[in-house]
Amino acid sequence: MTANPLAATIAHLGAAARAASRQMARASTASKNLALLALARRLRGESAELQAANARDIEAAEAAGLAAPLVDRLRLTPKVLATVAEGCEQIAAMPDPVGEIGGVRRRPSGISVGQMRVPLGVFGMIYESRPNVTIEAASLAIKSGNACILRGGSEAIHSNLALWKLVQASLGEAGLPPEAVQLIETTDRAAVGLLISAPESVDVIIPRGGKGLIERISREAKVPVIKHLDGNCHVYVDAAADLALAVKVTDNAKTQKYSPCNAAESLLVHRAVAAQFLPQIGAIFAAKGVEMRCDAASREILQQLDGAQLADATEADWAEEYLAPIISIKLVGDLDEAIDHINRFGSHHTDAIISEHHPSVMRFLREVDSASVMVNASTRFADGFEYGLGAEIGISTDKLHARGPVGLDGLTSLKWVVLGQGEVRI
Amino acid sequence: MTANPLAATIAHLGAAARAASRQMARASTASKNLALLALARRLRGESAELQAANARDIEAAEAAGLAAPLVDRLRLTPKVLATVAEGCEQIAAMPDPVGEIGGVRRRPSGISVGQMRVPLGVFGMIYESRPNVTIEAASLAIKSGNACILRGGSEAIHSNLALWKLVQASLGEAGLPPEAVQLIETTDRAAVGLLISAPESVDVIIPRGGKGLIERISREAKVPVIKHLDGNCHVYVDAAADLALAVKVTDNAKTQKYSPCNAAESLLVHRAVAAQFLPQIGAIFAAKGVEMRCDAASREILQQLDGAQLADATEADWAEEYLAPIISIKLVGDLDEAIDHINRFGSHHTDAIISEHHPSVMRFLREVDSASVMVNASTRFADGFEYGLGAEIGISTDKLHARGPVGLDGLTSLKWVVLGQGEVRI
Repeated sequence: MTANPLAATIAHLGAAARAASRQMARASTASKNLALLALARRLRGESAELQAANARDIEAAEAAGLAAPLVDRLRLTPKVLATVAEGCEQIAAMPDPVGEIGGVRRRPSGISVGQMRVPLGVFGMIYESRPNVTIEAASLAIKSGNACILRGGSEAIHSNLALWKLVQASLGEAGLPPEAVQLIETTDRAAVGLLISAPESVDVIIPRGGKGLIERISREAKVPVIKHLDGNCHVYVDAAADLALAVKVTDNAKTQKYSPCNAAESLLVHRAVAAQFLPQIGAIFAAKGVEMRCDAASREILQQLDGAQLADATEADWAEEYLAPIISIKLVGDLDEAIDHINRFGSHHTDAIISEHHPSVMRFLREVDSASVMVNASTRFADGFEYGLGAEIGISTDKLHARGPVGLDGLTSLKWVVLGQGEVRI
Repeated sequence: MTANPLAATIAHLGAAARAASRQMARASTASKNLALLALARRLRGESAELQAANARDIEAAEAAGLAAPLVDRLRLTPKVLATVAEGCEQIAAMPDPVGEIGGVRRRPSGISVGQMRVPLGVFGMIYESRPNVTIEAASLAIKSGNACILRGGSEAIHSNLALWKLVQASLGEAGLPPEAVQLIETTDRAAVGLLISAPESVDVIIPRGGKGLIERISREAKVPVIKHLDGNCHVYVDAAADLALAVKVTDNAKTQKYSPCNAAESLLVHRAVAAQFLPQIGAIFAAKGVEMRCDAASREILQQLDGAQLADATEADWAEEYLAPIISIKLVGDLDEAIDHINRFGSHHTDAIISEHHPSVMRFLREVDSASVMVNASTRFADGFEYGLGAEIGISTDKLHARGPVGLDGLTSLKWVVLGQGEVRI
């Protein structure tokens, strides 16, 4: 009934997803697993067709002068396809979260009360570049009994369309509604605005991409958003740290990969161990070309290192997510100062303490207000697969609903179940 | 730094609540319980002062010509005070949710991963009339380790101020920051707009009141809102129902009280039992003066009853929350029709099936998309106290985060805890 053809398209696709979500919610575990295994088989078997579609995106990206690392993120190499196929098989092998009933207790009135896990309904996924996200989102939707509406980046449109066709065929093969996974075929940007304003079609929006995209979507959305803003992750080396362990973990947290959101961006060191610890980690950073942005006290210690790239940290550095070979470094007088600094400048994503002192460890775990808090482990572990969730649809920096890596459970909600034998309220 | 004095006040109060929330998050269980027991003692001991403050509100309400039932809702009678004092003692007796660690599992990498329950931070509570909500919100905030900012109705301002002073004294007595429970002293309506736009001060807003208030707050809020919209609750009497039980439960769900959100507003009856069941429940409704708004098929059966107030149901009746002695009645051909009707017209609050047939019961529990789904029990049980939550801060009709009655757990979030021994990502 609308004059705007794009609005009509999105409304139509939303209604189809909503209808399919009801079927998905009652789908058997067997049929959902069948769809996932069929999808894995097709991803392996139709590799040539997928790569032909992908070649069109690559060609367009190169013609448009996209930087080489960005072009690489678009590529559906046989290795990428094998990985996503394996992901589908892993999700098929996981327990079905839907219908799980927990915590049932008898109440004095005679009723028994518990909670049942059920799908959220329809989620909308807005993402950029990597076409493998299409399969990750679809496979998590299938297993969690949700429908989803996918909106990938325009630069990956041919790849996404080709992958989506396999998803729909696999759903059909398993007797499930192909409409359960929808893909917005147009690259018109207005489609995003329509999708995030449609509570009748979408229960939650999950954006994956740059901070700008996510902030804009959160601001404009008329449906709930599971947000992932920045990852300004800290490593705090306590006075009671095992320093060899601290060197190993800090090095890994910063340098194992620079671009992930769970890489460390800031290092806090207790004054009592700074003179011993900093030269060791500083030498590694210097050797790996990591620039160190220091407060005055840490700079004084690191100054003596040969070949270190040092700079004075500004206030802005404490809040920065570099995603690059740069780290900010600050000495602290005690645990309180470390916790206060992290809660003030951090992004509530992932923060780690290196310490052998139990009371300090427990205070750090309790008082650092982040989605993941770690002891004597690399921040790089903050990841759905590493946590045992099988896969992740994203990492939430929100406090409500899902916090940290969001897997199958984060795509469900708990409803109350009351089992009675004719009880009434008195 | 702002020119607007009200904005400065709200900002100041928000900053104080935020600072206090950090202390509350690490408060010991003993000190939180001490504050709750001190509050209970004061509510009982200072009953005269509270009633004097309450008398000012009652007087103003009567002078303003407020209807008698609304004036009654304002009253802090000794019975009301005894009930809220007892509520504080019950919350003190409950386990502390904060710091609970669950689901810790060893991962192949060597790290152990689990989840820890922590306070949300600061919640804002916007409510109308009943001053006892001030104590309910404060006591749940204290036990859950949160700070809160309360904004009661202007008609209860003197009562709320008097109650709040007792809360602050009790916090102080227990060595906790009195700023953990803030009350907005001005009755200026602009204060609400400022509160719901202050993510730096407030982590979540919980409005309690009419649908209009809640819709407006949800629309304008810049922070997450735990919403409770309407309660259009259904009772579905299945073909396989125990009809004596169905009569007892349906009667209770509709007539035990008319005003609560968990009272039944709509009755669906399977055709196979309608001729037997409807005259029985209809006679009770007729005797209690409950108007029945019927579809054609149910009207035909009920027509034969003496003294029944019957009307033809319109489409609007299926979606209506009457909160009055009115019920809509419809016959359905099967379970699918019942489920579809509830999911389409219901408000996703609380719905019950009366049936002895296990497969129908399980399908109803799984497929009705409501915060509470019940079998052979009155919808009136949808309540935090009846569910064993101790008390409730509200009932959520949202799907994300907390669903249904929201107690201590709903005021907390789960963060990930990673316990390592120097593990790094490979």
